[in-house]
Amino acid sequence: MSHAAISLAGVFPPITTPFDAGGEVHYQALEENLERWNQYDLAGYVVLGSNGEAVYLSDEEKVRILETARRVIPRNKLLLAGTGREATRHTIAFTRRAAEAGADAALVVTPHYYTARMTPDSLLQHYLAVADASPIPVLIYNVPGFTGVNVDAATVGRAAGHPNIVGIKDTSGNINQAADTVRLAGPAFQLLAGSAGFFFAGLAIGAVGGILALANIAPAQCIEIYRLSKAGRWAEAAELQRRMLPVNAAVTARFGIAGLKAAMDMLGYYGGPVRSPLLEPSEGDRQALRNILIEGGILS
Amino acid sequence: MSHAAISLAGVFPPITTPFDAGGEVHYQALEENLERWNQYDLAGYVVLGSNGEAVYLSDEEKVRILETARRVIPRNKLLLAGTGREATRHTIAFTRRAAEAGADAALVVTPHYYTARMTPDSLLQHYLAVADASPIPVLIYNVPGFTGVNVDAATVGRAAGHPNIVGIKDTSGNINQAADTVRLAGPAFQLLAGSAGFFFAGLAIGAVGGILALANIAPAQCIEIYRLSKAGRWAEAAELQRRMLPVNAAVTARFGIAGLKAAMDMLGYYGGPVRSPLLEPSEGDRQALRNILIEGGILS
Amino acid sequence: MSHAAISLAGVFPPITTPFDAGGEVHYQALEENLERWNQYDLAGYVVLGSNGEAVYLSDEEKVRILETARRVIPRNKLLLAGTGREATRHTIAFTRRAAEAGADAALVVTPHYYTARMTPDSLLQHYLAVADASPIPVLIYNVPGFTGVNVDAATVGRAAGHPNIVGIKDTSGNINQAADTVRLAGPAFQLLAGSAGFFFAGLAIGAVGGILALANIAPAQCIEIYRLSKAGRWAEAAELQRRMLPVNAAVTARFGIAGLKAAMDMLGYYGGPVRSPLLEPSEGDRQALRNILIEGGILS
Amino acid sequence: MSHAAISLAGVFPPITTPFDAGGEVHYQALEENLERWNQYDLAGYVVLGSNGEAVYLSDEEKVRILETARRVIPRNKLLLAGTGREATRHTIAFTRRAAEAGADAALVVTPHYYTARMTPDSLLQHYLAVADASPIPVLIYNVPGFTGVNVDAATVGRAAGHPNIVGIKDTSGNINQAADTVRLAGPAFQLLAGSAGFFFAGLAIGAVGGILALANIAPAQCIEIYRLSKAGRWAEAAELQRRMLPVNAAVTARFGIAGLKAAMDMLGYYGGPVRSPLLEPSEGDRQALRNILIEGGILS
Repeated sequence: MSHAAISLAGVFPPITTPFDAGGEVHYQALEENLERWNQYDLAGYVVLGSNGEAVYLSDEEKVRILETARRVIPRNKLLLAGTGREATRHTIAFTRRAAEAGADAALVVTPHYYTARMTPDSLLQHYLAVADASPIPVLIYNVPGFTGVNVDAATVGRAAGHPNIVGIKDTSGNINQAADTVRLAGPAFQLLAGSAGFFFAGLAIGAVGGILALANIAPAQCIEIYRLSKAGRWAEAAELQRRMLPVNAAVTARFGIAGLKAAMDMLGYYGGPVRSPLLEPSEGDRQALRNILIEGGILS
Repeated sequence: MSHAAISLAGVFPPITTPFDAGGEVHYQALEENLERWNQYDLAGYVVLGSNGEAVYLSDEEKVRILETARRVIPRNKLLLAGTGREATRHTIAFTRRAAEAGADAALVVTPHYYTARMTPDSLLQHYLAVADASPIPVLIYNVPGFTGVNVDAATVGRAAGHPNIVGIKDTSGNINQAADTVRLAGPAFQLLAGSAGFFFAGLAIGAVGGILALANIAPAQCIEIYRLSKAGRWAEAAELQRRMLPVNAAVTARFGIAGLKAAMDMLGYYGGPVRSPLLEPSEGDRQALRNILIEGGILS
Repeated sequence: MSHAAISLAGVFPPITTPFDAGGEVHYQALEENLERWNQYDLAGYVVLGSNGEAVYLSDEEKVRILETARRVIPRNKLLLAGTGREATRHTIAFTRRAAEAGADAALVVTPHYYTARMTPDSLLQHYLAVADASPIPVLIYNVPGFTGVNVDAATVGRAAGHPNIVGIKDTSGNINQAADTVRLAGPAFQLLAGSAGFFFAGLAIGAVGGILALANIAPAQCIEIYRLSKAGRWAEAAELQRRMLPVNAAVTARFGIAGLKAAMDMLGYYGGPVRSPLLEPSEGDRQALRNILIEGGILS
Repeated sequence: MSHAAISLAGVFPPITTPFDAGGEVHYQALEENLERWNQYDLAGYVVLGSNGEAVYLSDEEKVRILETARRVIPRNKLLLAGTGREATRHTIAFTRRAAEAGADAALVVTPHYYTARMTPDSLLQHYLAVADASPIPVLIYNVPGFTGVNVDAATVGRAAGHPNIVGIKDTSGNINQAADTVRLAGPAFQLLAGSAGFFFAGLAIGAVGGILALANIAPAQCIEIYRLSKAGRWAEAAELQRRMLPVNAAVTARFGIAGLKAAMDMLGYYGGPVRSPLLEPSEGDRQALRNILIEGGILS
């Protein structure tokens, strides 16, 4: 498997996991959401990512979610599965199960509980071991806002030497580091912007695409930012990017996954409840969210 | 169950989990370590805590570890089990399994992946739900150095109103907050210092005991700090506390769990390897550690 | 000058700087405040500290404030002057002026603008140069909450080797570090707790006294915590400490210097306005503050 | 004065302040450096900024530096003077002196000592008062890496309503926030990237130029990034930007101002020593720096 074997170019929504009123996974709603998203020119999906509340799912649920998603996701779209665990051994085991369930690649969040111990050498050892054992290509998932751990550009550069480590989702928002990652990891390595807040800037400095929570509710706009950028229409891309910022903030930093799910409900997707300890948005939050969606041209 | 039903006074080592050379849990070594610790006047043990590499263990391993420990731990010593997960539902489920396996109380680390969402209201909802469902008393485990989440004194004060939430292990090292917790949570609520670095200061401001990584390798000294404090011999307690600081730092912040296990090996306990992605200490680290143990009077 | 030449034992308020309605220094109010504080058994005063809004004063104002204070402060009480600047050369120059104006010792805040450059070696060089040049004893002022810089215990230990560096005001609240500072700096070096939030705990681990914003408005209670601690009446000291926590929080972290000055006004001292860009407390803040003072037994 | 009255488009080096071997300001070296930089198509200079060690200069030195620089800087290049102090009143006073000395605009760093008090309202009050009183246009200087304070996009948006607040130097590196600032502050407000690490990305999202430490030693390359971007040759701009990253890191985060000055010395500018408490680079640091300059094509 070489770096070139899989193209990550384009837009990927890290999809939410639908729960029913009783808090159980709503597999049918998952299928219906995917069928609707399939109508857009998305490059694929991240299943079991942060926005999928993966940390709140059992292994059994995770496998069934992957299998369900794979059935609905056409073969020309990628299924990237979140498979990272704290232990290297558990990450390897679940990455194998994800591959069996049909995942095209594994998105492996940095281990992070022993934050200060997650040194460059420790992280490198982890990713090399996972990549050695994984039947599918591996992406590093750097999300210091959740983990408190950052994978620096030099470490990514070292990891990129492994033929089965093909890319990174960088959600740090540190555009200097992202550009340095492109420099040190080389042209075959694929950088994905981890948030719509810096999707366009990421594309400008060399990202091939983005894994964007915003793409759950505004796939057309995210794809348009990508297309305008690829067409060299930078001013228009920057302008659309800016217009999306308040919407993106609302479904990420401001109201979180509960906000993202509420927005999905407003837009005709199945959003539904979050699992505890996450809290549902207040009525005031929902109203503010609705106004932001309207002002952003997402909701009429 | 009222607050008074369980006394957490005294010293608890959060015990390490022994692995064999192949990385599998070494249950016999666990028994032998416990038998040796049983000779000291410890109040009990924390099993499956941070120092137990709980995040690197499978559920099956965890249950067998609890059952093994319970067989060896005499009934007059407490078995506190680490049972916290990200999801409230998983925390409840594992807390029940821990109770069945013989745990006397559950030490529930704050959920933390969605760091910024772990608001006071979210944390309170989580702990109340766990306490409602738990057959054994619940302790909050506040360890912002690992989780990035802090439970403030006001939130602990609110949680303490639940009869099944009996205490907190506070590893923040924020002694102001710890004192305010004592004030707001009331006299029946039990505060445990979460590190030997502030054990004596914690006792001074109202802690009833401590859960101390250092007690894995220096149980006698930890117990002596406790006894001197209880006897009002503060200057001696402070002096012994100070003498232990470099030893404590070496097996926590400086060399981590791998250092703690290396120290155990030097002292005749079974330390053994850590699980990946943790790294083993270098030879230089081991030598530095050995010197610190000698200077601290732990190793001759 | 040896370490033993000056005793820092006891309670020091870091006094506020009174401004009149036009924002100019109100020297007469300063005198009157000091005359009232002089009636308490305080060990002395910090003038031109953080609570004195030193960063908002001109050099001319600073010198006149020191001279005014010195006239009113009896010789048996110490005048500690805040003299730290970013540049070593400016710190030295102003420390000399403070000595000429009658200061007994200099409290030198860590330089901090180039935060990441303020390494142990850089800080040590700074303090040694200041101590060499200063005609009065020097105290290190560690206040990471304002500066973003922390002086670790090892660095303090190295600085304590200089005969003119006699102590530290530690406002970090890190009681582990404070105890380690006592260990490494030796018995002649004097540690002062930098906030009433950990005054008692600080005394327990070896501090000789405290520089406490709270002592501006509750000198009697601060002195009582000190006396009870010295008399070995730890439980009473801890209890009084806890009772003071909400009052202390109100005049520090919660409402800041503007809150401290508002509390002074409520208690018959001259508080007066703060300088911009600090903001005055809202009417709601004042009411909350008043209630806290009443509940804390400071105001009737 | 309207926003349009001054154009900040292009590249500005925040120039270093030369000191002689005795640590005094070397005004002739300042002139000679400027004369050399004048040969490049720079839009102007920042004098008395962070890289100018402004916090280590006396007021008298500052004024003479401004006067000296103004004599050498041609009228078609802008002189932006760093004028921010902690107190609003001192900032106003020095901004007026800078205007008298010939500054075209004032770059006003956020006040920051009382970090937690520097709320949006406090910062806004400060900037509005300074802008009201300043005879020259005002730029906000946001540099959380030094100050610990961040001016968020909403606050900048409010400040931009003042006709004398014309722009911001944003050194946060938060490209999401920078884009949101462009959105909220409107088209007449001018955003300047505060570091070469995100200069190109900044231009992509709407910045009009950059204030770049790197431009002290690589003015041609910084100008080329700007020209390529303006010409729509984004791939070339991104490539050159990436090639400059290690050089930029070396003279900022890695070796700091002392490294920048050492690089200037290697390149035939007058770099010279830094003022204490900054430390000179070690011989090993100098060698590493030299290699980076060679690899970056800056030094042959």
